[in-house]
Amino acid sequence: MARFINIAGAQLGGIARDESRRHVVERMIALLNDAHKRGAEVVVFPELALTSFFPRWWMTDQAEIDAFFETEMPNPATQPLFDAAKRLGIGFYLGYAELAQEAGGTKHYNTAILVDKTGAIVGKYRKVHLPGHADHRPHMPYQHLEKHYFDVGDIGFGSWDFAGGKFGMAICNDRRWPETYRVMALQGAEVVVLGYNTPTHIPWEPVYDHLSAFHNHLVMQASAYQNSMYVVGVAKAGKEEGSNLLAGSCIVAPSGEIIAMASTAGDEVFVAKCDLDICLYNRKAMFNFAEHRQVHHYKKITDRM
Amino acid sequence: MARFINIAGAQLGGIARDESRRHVVERMIALLNDAHKRGAEVVVFPELALTSFFPRWWMTDQAEIDAFFETEMPNPATQPLFDAAKRLGIGFYLGYAELAQEAGGTKHYNTAILVDKTGAIVGKYRKVHLPGHADHRPHMPYQHLEKHYFDVGDIGFGSWDFAGGKFGMAICNDRRWPETYRVMALQGAEVVVLGYNTPTHIPWEPVYDHLSAFHNHLVMQASAYQNSMYVVGVAKAGKEEGSNLLAGSCIVAPSGEIIAMASTAGDEVFVAKCDLDICLYNRKAMFNFAEHRQVHHYKKITDRM
Repeated sequence: MARFINIAGAQLGGIARDESRRHVVERMIALLNDAHKRGAEVVVFPELALTSFFPRWWMTDQAEIDAFFETEMPNPATQPLFDAAKRLGIGFYLGYAELAQEAGGTKHYNTAILVDKTGAIVGKYRKVHLPGHADHRPHMPYQHLEKHYFDVGDIGFGSWDFAGGKFGMAICNDRRWPETYRVMALQGAEVVVLGYNTPTHIPWEPVYDHLSAFHNHLVMQASAYQNSMYVVGVAKAGKEEGSNLLAGSCIVAPSGEIIAMASTAGDEVFVAKCDLDICLYNRKAMFNFAEHRQVHHYKKITDRM
Repeated sequence: MARFINIAGAQLGGIARDESRRHVVERMIALLNDAHKRGAEVVVFPELALTSFFPRWWMTDQAEIDAFFETEMPNPATQPLFDAAKRLGIGFYLGYAELAQEAGGTKHYNTAILVDKTGAIVGKYRKVHLPGHADHRPHMPYQHLEKHYFDVGDIGFGSWDFAGGKFGMAICNDRRWPETYRVMALQGAEVVVLGYNTPTHIPWEPVYDHLSAFHNHLVMQASAYQNSMYVVGVAKAGKEEGSNLLAGSCIVAPSGEIIAMASTAGDEVFVAKCDLDICLYNRKAMFNFAEHRQVHHYKKITDRM
């Protein structure tokens, strides 16, 4: 048996603070067109793909902050992306900052959606693992204020029927936590798609700066293998407003092998023909969960912070 | 701050079916002496280190099976190992097959112990993740009958004060499951020591044979990084009764980097000077569990088989 799907990563280079969403969307549509020519059925864009990575700046004016968020999706700036994908018959993953008016009041989430080839939003995920800090650190060359600007995602990790497979979503720092992938694999996810913005220099914890590319691939490769799933990780990469963002966007097979990878730190499409039935190899053998997992010995994972 | 401990892996080459425990213990004592000369304070031996890897054979005579098990520890065959370690002032990890007479009746466990430098057993672990199969597969060149010969470990994953640090234990297939390391990290483990016997060819699931060395390192490196701990994995390696066992024994730092590794598939010692305080780097930052983990989103890990 084989169940093929062509998946593309659409890495973005840096986005300037004053770059308009419309211009970013034009760049994304160019990548969509390239991906379509290369047979892609699904395209994965980065985390917070529509703006510069604003958590690097301490802001106190709520209007200035909220200007980085989307209050509806699609909206006039992103509608052309939805239209282009629909025209090309391509589904996509998109990360953006979401301003939500909900029962609990106004919330700010680091969000990703799955959009199917008809342009319909079929899945939403709100980032669970928010890295960085909440306090102002003005002595740093840049900050990482995700804990300040975002609420912890309230939906949790899911799995959606999408493009002929079962897709899960994660965002950036989520990829470093094995729980992320496991919770989705237990729901049958065969492909986890995720975007990231990862500075190659962390001013307040620089000790592992020289290993940032290694760590990025290590966690995705191990998790793909341990959950017998594809993992597609896509960066916003390169120079952006005084920060250097890690590239290395890639598609990892259920073997843990990287089967496609970006070769630049700019706007770039890479594609792999993925056979989702490969996930079954180890799901029936080494990682047959029902046969081998011993959940009564895992209790501390959910009992302890 | 720095808190150094010299840790050695003591890889073993193959053990013939007719090789006596006394002879194996002689080989182990030679490795202990080598490790001592190189400054080791703790030595890690393989899984089921005292005999050939007997789960490869289908046996029906319970006496023949039980001859591979230890009914007490130490015993006359292993006492010289305990004596030598005490004389040298070295602590060690030892894997063996344990025949236990307990309240629940006779049990067979794949067991490991921590023995301190005074020769006292200070920790015991019984393997949780038993790989392979329980049924007879006579058409295979060899089998992997851990599910037939062993009971699932009843103690779970622990963490012990040992040799100036916090040590956890795992055995072979446990190393492929992220839950293994996480449960111990949540108990403060700074070093996870484990032994393995891993055939490089799995007759009933050969599809990833060519990746066995990659997978071995991948899971230990990712888990060391994700839990900010040292991982010491030690093989019984090389040719053994018609099976080729994976080598690649190594010590992985909390960065995920391999900092010492065996270079043969035979009896061999390798040593690394490990600074346990390095574990704190990421435990205070990227992997500060209390700050970043979101346990309410992990429930499926303990709810679902």
